[in-house]
Amino acid sequence: MKKEFKVVFKPDNKTVKVEQGTTVLDAATSSDIYIDSICGGRGKCGKCKVLIDGNVQSDQTDLLTAEEKEGGYFLACLARVVGNLKVTVPKESRVESHQILMKSVTPLPAIDPPVLKVPLSLTPPSLADYVSDLDRVTHALRNLDMGHVTIGLPTLKKISRVLRDNQWNVNVTLMDLWDRKEIIDIGPPSDNDLIGIAVDIGTTTIVVELVDLTTGKVIDARSDYNKQVVYGEDVLSRVMYTEEHDDGISKLTSTIRYGINDLIRELVIENNMRYERICRAVLSGNTVMMHLFYGLDPKYIRHEPYIPVMSFVPQMKAVKLDLSVNPNAYIYALPCRSSYVGGDVTADIIASGMSDNKDISLLIDVGTNGEVVLGNDTFLVSCSCSAGPAFEGGEVEFGVRAMKGAIERVWINDGLVEYSTIGNEKPKGICGSGLIELIAELFSNGVIDRTGKIQLDKNNVRTEVGNNGNQFIVAFKEDTAIDKNIVMTDVDIQNILRTKAAVYASCNVLLKTFGYKFGDLCNVFIAGSFGNYLDTKKAITIGLLPDLPLDTFKFIGNGALGGARMVLLSRDLQDKAAEIVENMTHIELSVSSMFFKEFTSALFIPHTELDQFPHIATRVYT
Amino acid sequence: MKKEFKVVFKPDNKTVKVEQGTTVLDAATSSDIYIDSICGGRGKCGKCKVLIDGNVQSDQTDLLTAEEKEGGYFLACLARVVGNLKVTVPKESRVESHQILMKSVTPLPAIDPPVLKVPLSLTPPSLADYVSDLDRVTHALRNLDMGHVTIGLPTLKKISRVLRDNQWNVNVTLMDLWDRKEIIDIGPPSDNDLIGIAVDIGTTTIVVELVDLTTGKVIDARSDYNKQVVYGEDVLSRVMYTEEHDDGISKLTSTIRYGINDLIRELVIENNMRYERICRAVLSGNTVMMHLFYGLDPKYIRHEPYIPVMSFVPQMKAVKLDLSVNPNAYIYALPCRSSYVGGDVTADIIASGMSDNKDISLLIDVGTNGEVVLGNDTFLVSCSCSAGPAFEGGEVEFGVRAMKGAIERVWINDGLVEYSTIGNEKPKGICGSGLIELIAELFSNGVIDRTGKIQLDKNNVRTEVGNNGNQFIVAFKEDTAIDKNIVMTDVDIQNILRTKAAVYASCNVLLKTFGYKFGDLCNVFIAGSFGNYLDTKKAITIGLLPDLPLDTFKFIGNGALGGARMVLLSRDLQDKAAEIVENMTHIELSVSSMFFKEFTSALFIPHTELDQFPHIATRVYT
Repeated sequence: MKKEFKVVFKPDNKTVKVEQGTTVLDAATSSDIYIDSICGGRGKCGKCKVLIDGNVQSDQTDLLTAEEKEGGYFLACLARVVGNLKVTVPKESRVESHQILMKSVTPLPAIDPPVLKVPLSLTPPSLADYVSDLDRVTHALRNLDMGHVTIGLPTLKKISRVLRDNQWNVNVTLMDLWDRKEIIDIGPPSDNDLIGIAVDIGTTTIVVELVDLTTGKVIDARSDYNKQVVYGEDVLSRVMYTEEHDDGISKLTSTIRYGINDLIRELVIENNMRYERICRAVLSGNTVMMHLFYGLDPKYIRHEPYIPVMSFVPQMKAVKLDLSVNPNAYIYALPCRSSYVGGDVTADIIASGMSDNKDISLLIDVGTNGEVVLGNDTFLVSCSCSAGPAFEGGEVEFGVRAMKGAIERVWINDGLVEYSTIGNEKPKGICGSGLIELIAELFSNGVIDRTGKIQLDKNNVRTEVGNNGNQFIVAFKEDTAIDKNIVMTDVDIQNILRTKAAVYASCNVLLKTFGYKFGDLCNVFIAGSFGNYLDTKKAITIGLLPDLPLDTFKFIGNGALGGARMVLLSRDLQDKAAEIVENMTHIELSVSSMFFKEFTSALFIPHTELDQFPHIATRVYT
Repeated sequence: MKKEFKVVFKPDNKTVKVEQGTTVLDAATSSDIYIDSICGGRGKCGKCKVLIDGNVQSDQTDLLTAEEKEGGYFLACLARVVGNLKVTVPKESRVESHQILMKSVTPLPAIDPPVLKVPLSLTPPSLADYVSDLDRVTHALRNLDMGHVTIGLPTLKKISRVLRDNQWNVNVTLMDLWDRKEIIDIGPPSDNDLIGIAVDIGTTTIVVELVDLTTGKVIDARSDYNKQVVYGEDVLSRVMYTEEHDDGISKLTSTIRYGINDLIRELVIENNMRYERICRAVLSGNTVMMHLFYGLDPKYIRHEPYIPVMSFVPQMKAVKLDLSVNPNAYIYALPCRSSYVGGDVTADIIASGMSDNKDISLLIDVGTNGEVVLGNDTFLVSCSCSAGPAFEGGEVEFGVRAMKGAIERVWINDGLVEYSTIGNEKPKGICGSGLIELIAELFSNGVIDRTGKIQLDKNNVRTEVGNNGNQFIVAFKEDTAIDKNIVMTDVDIQNILRTKAAVYASCNVLLKTFGYKFGDLCNVFIAGSFGNYLDTKKAITIGLLPDLPLDTFKFIGNGALGGARMVLLSRDLQDKAAEIVENMTHIELSVSSMFFKEFTSALFIPHTELDQFPHIATRVYT
C-alpha cells in the first residue's frame, strides 16, 4: 500500500489524507475546494497557481515566473504530494462558487405539461366490488378519458397503503407518454401542486429553475459553476480527460449530477418542499455535456468524422440518472443536432421563436463554441465554430468569467478610463462584455488601429511595452482587488479578434451559402453568456455583430434555460424540439474553404471590407 | 450484541453461527437446509421434528409424543438456540430438493414472439454522413419498417463500442412494445439465437423452461420446490408470515427470486449459454405468488373483501426484478382474475384452448386452492374454493407430495392390497393420486361405506382401531422406508372427502348458476399437480369428477407452465391472456348459500344424489 500524507488547505483550514503521488489539484477537489484549471490538469494553462509549504515533486513549467517559483508557488496540477503539506489557494486560482445568475427572456407558452394531477374519490371495495386496488384506480381514470394507464413497481408497491390511509380519496400524478399514461405517484388530496425543474447544463455554469407547472411561474432558481471545470475548461479538454482516465466518464458524470443535485437541494430546502414533489425535469446542454450527464462515452465526438453516440435520448426515469427528484419523474433532454450543435441550441431556437416566424432570423450563441442558426418557419440551417474561450475569460491574461469583481462595462473619454464591475466590487479581471467594450473604446479613441495593435503614446501613462507586446493599463494596481495592474495586451487583443472573426465569418458563410445577405434579416437573436450585458453598438464597432438597425438585435439571455423551461411547460414544444432537430440542415465549417476566407477578412476592426459596416466607416457609432 | 452459538446439522455436517434466541428452523434455512413447515413456523403443524443434542429453549407443544420428547425431539420452529447444538434432521422432516417434473401437454402456437433479432450492415460514418450512432441504427431499422424505435441507457452506453468492434455489422435484439420497439441488446452477427424462459411459480414447486423462440422447442427444463414452504405450506400461511414479520415480504420475495435464479443458473451452465442471451421471460403463478414475486404486500388478499394490489402487472425489465437473464429483457406475468383465481388459471385456460372452442368446457385445477372455469369462445366464468391441502399431502397423517417413494397408485382385489410408488422406492407416504385411488378401492371393496367410515372386519388384518378413529393399514412397517405402518384413518378420509366435495360442489354451482348441467359439457380439462397420474374412473368413483363419458376428460398437466410457454411464443396469446381476464365473470363462493348446500350433498361417496353418478350407482366402474 502507498504511503499517505496530510494536506491542509488554507485559508479554508480543510485537511485531507491522500496517497503519495496524488496531485495537489486532486487533493483539493476531494476536499471540495475547486481550483481553476482551464486545461483540465494538463499543466498548460497556468491558472491553478498555489502556494505550497512542504515537499512536493513537480514537473518543470514556464507558466510560473522565477519570482513565483522562489516564493513557493506551484501549479496544483503538476505538484505531487510526497510529504505533509500546507497549501494556500489564492482567490484568483479559485472557481467562484456562486456566479451571477443570468436571466432568460422568454415568453410564457400555452401551459400544457405532460404531467398532470388527477383527484380521485373512489368507492371502497366490497364483496360485490372486489377489483384490485390498481384496477380501481385505472378504471376511475378510464372513466375520466385518461386512456391506457400503466404503473411502475415503486408506485404499485405503495398504492394499497395510500388508498386506505386516505379513505380512498387520493391525488394521482400522471405522466403522459403519448400512447399511454403512467401513474408516477399517488398521494393524499393535499398533494395538489405540480412542480418541475428546468436545468441548463452549461460547460461553465449549471442553472436549475423550480417551476410551477400549473401557472408557468418560476418559483426560484439557483446556479453554480459546473464543477467539471476541474477536469478541463472547455468540452474538448473534458473529452480528452475521459480518454486519458479509466474512470474519467464516471467521474465527470457524477460531478455533473452532484452539481445539479446540490442546486436542487438548495431549492428544496429554501422553498420548504420535498424532493418527491418535483415530478418532471427538462434538461438542455451541448452535446458533450449531454453525453457526460448520461454517462455516454463522448470519445468519437472529438475525432473525425465527429460522431456522437446519440442526438436524441429517450426520456427516462430520474432514478436511473440519480437525480434528486421524484424517482419516477421522467427526465427529458432537448435533442442535439450534431456533435457541436447541441440541445442548448435547440432550446435557444425555441426560446427565440424563430422557427414559428415567417421572417428570416439569425440566432447567435457565443461561448467557447459558437453556434449560429439561420431560418424561419419553413427552414433552419445551423453551423458551429470554435470561437475560443476569449469571451469567457480564457486566453486573455486578465480575462475572467462573469463573476463578482469582473469589469463588465468600459468607457474612455479624452483619455479618462471609467469602468463598472459586477457587484460594484474592486476589479479582479475583465469578463466578455468588458473585453468587447474595451476594444471598441480603444479603437474609437485611436489607442488601437484596425489590426488591433496598441499604439504607444508617451502622453498616455496607460500604454506601455509588456511581455506580450504593447499593453494598455485598464485599472491600476492600487484600484484592483488583486494587487496588480489589470492590463490588455496585443496578444490578448489578437485572441479576442480571432473569436469575433470566427463568429462573424460563421454568420456570413451561413447566409451566403443559402443565398441571403445580412440586410435580409429581420431579427438577430443573441443568446448566451454575455447576452444581457452586451452593448450592441460596441459589438458592431469591433465587427462581432453585423451593422444592422439596432432594433434588429434581440437579446434572449440564457436561451438554453428559457427553452428548457418552455418545453417543461408544453407538450407541443417538446414535439417542436424534435421537429426542429429533424428538419434542421447542418453545415460543417471545418471543411469549408469559404469559411477560412471570411475568417481572415473578419480579423480587422471592424472588417476588411468597410462597406459591410457603414455606420462604423462613417463613425456614426464612435 | 447478542451471544452467538454454533449449530451443526446432521447428517449434512453443515455448521452455522447464529445469535442466541434464533429458532433452529431459521438456523437451518440460513444453512440451505430446508425443513418442512406447513404452518410457516407457527408451531401448529408438527412437520418440523428434529433431534437436538444440546441446550434449547422451547414452548410447550402437543404435537410431539411423550416418547419423542424423551428421545430428544423438538419442533425446529419452537426450539431457540441458547448454546452450541448438534441437530439431526430426519428425512421425513425435509423438503425434498428435486421433485418430479410434471410435463405440460400443450399445442405449439403460431410462433410470433414480441422479441426479434435483426441483422444490420451499416455504412460507416463520414464527414458527409455524420448522424449519431443511435440514429444510424434507428434509421436502418426504420428502413426495415420497424416503426418507432427507442433504447434504454445500458444499451445506449454500449452501442458505439459494439458498432465499431464489429465493423458496423451487428445483430440488434428488439422488444416489440406494441406502439414502439425498444433495442434491448446489440451484439456481433454471431449472436443470432433467440432464447426465452417460461416460469411457473407454484406455491409448492417452481419450474423454469428454456425455450427457443424461433422454433418453439423446449431446450431444457428444471424444477425445484418453492423454498418459501419454510415460511408456510399454503398461500395464506405465507401471507400471515408477511403480516407478522417486518421483513416478511422482502424475505419471501428474495426466496422466490433466488429459487428461480438457481434454476436459470443450472439451465445456463448445463446448456453452455450466457444469461444475457435470455431476452424474454413469461411467468405464471397464483395471485399471492405474483404479489410475493413482485414484492407487493399481499395483506389485503387475506381479509374480506379480499382485494389484491393488482391483477395485471405492466411488463418490466429483468433488472428491476433481480432476474438472472438479460437485464433489459422484458418480463411479462400472466394476469390474475381475482385474489384466488390467478395467472396460473389464465395460463390453464390458454393451455386448454377452451376460450377458442365453440363447445362448452369445464376446467378444473386442484391444489390447496381449487379453481374451476366454465365457458367457451363467447363466455368464461370462474370460481375458486378452499379445497384444503389433502391432495398435496396435508391434513392426512401419511400424506406426502408427489415425490419419490410416494404411493401413487393402489389396487385392492379380494383383500389383497397392491400399490406402486414414484421411482419404485419403498413407500414413505401417499400422494394425491394414491389417496383418491385408495378411497375408491376401499369403497369398491366395501371397506368403507358411503360416508367414508372404515368398517372394522376381524377377518381383515388391515383394519384396526387407531387414535383417529378406525384405520386401514396400506403398507406394513417392514415394507416401508419410514419404519412405521402407513395407514389411512377415518379422520384422513373425512378430510379427503371434504376436498373432493369442495371441488365437485364448485363445478356444480358454476354450472347451475349459468343454467348448465354436467351433460352439456364437451370437455373437462384437468390441470394441476396430479393431472398426469389421476385414474379418471376412480376419481368418478369417489365423486371428485362428474360421471361423464371418459373421453370427456382431458389432462393438460402443468397448464400454468404450458400456458406461460405458449404466451412466451405468441404476441396474440399475450393479448388473449388480457382479454380472458377482462372478460371472465367471477363468482364468489364464500358468500353463496347454494355452495354450502352442494358441498354438504357432495360429502358422500360418490354423492348424496346417486342419480348424478349412474355408472357408480350401477357399479359399472367398480
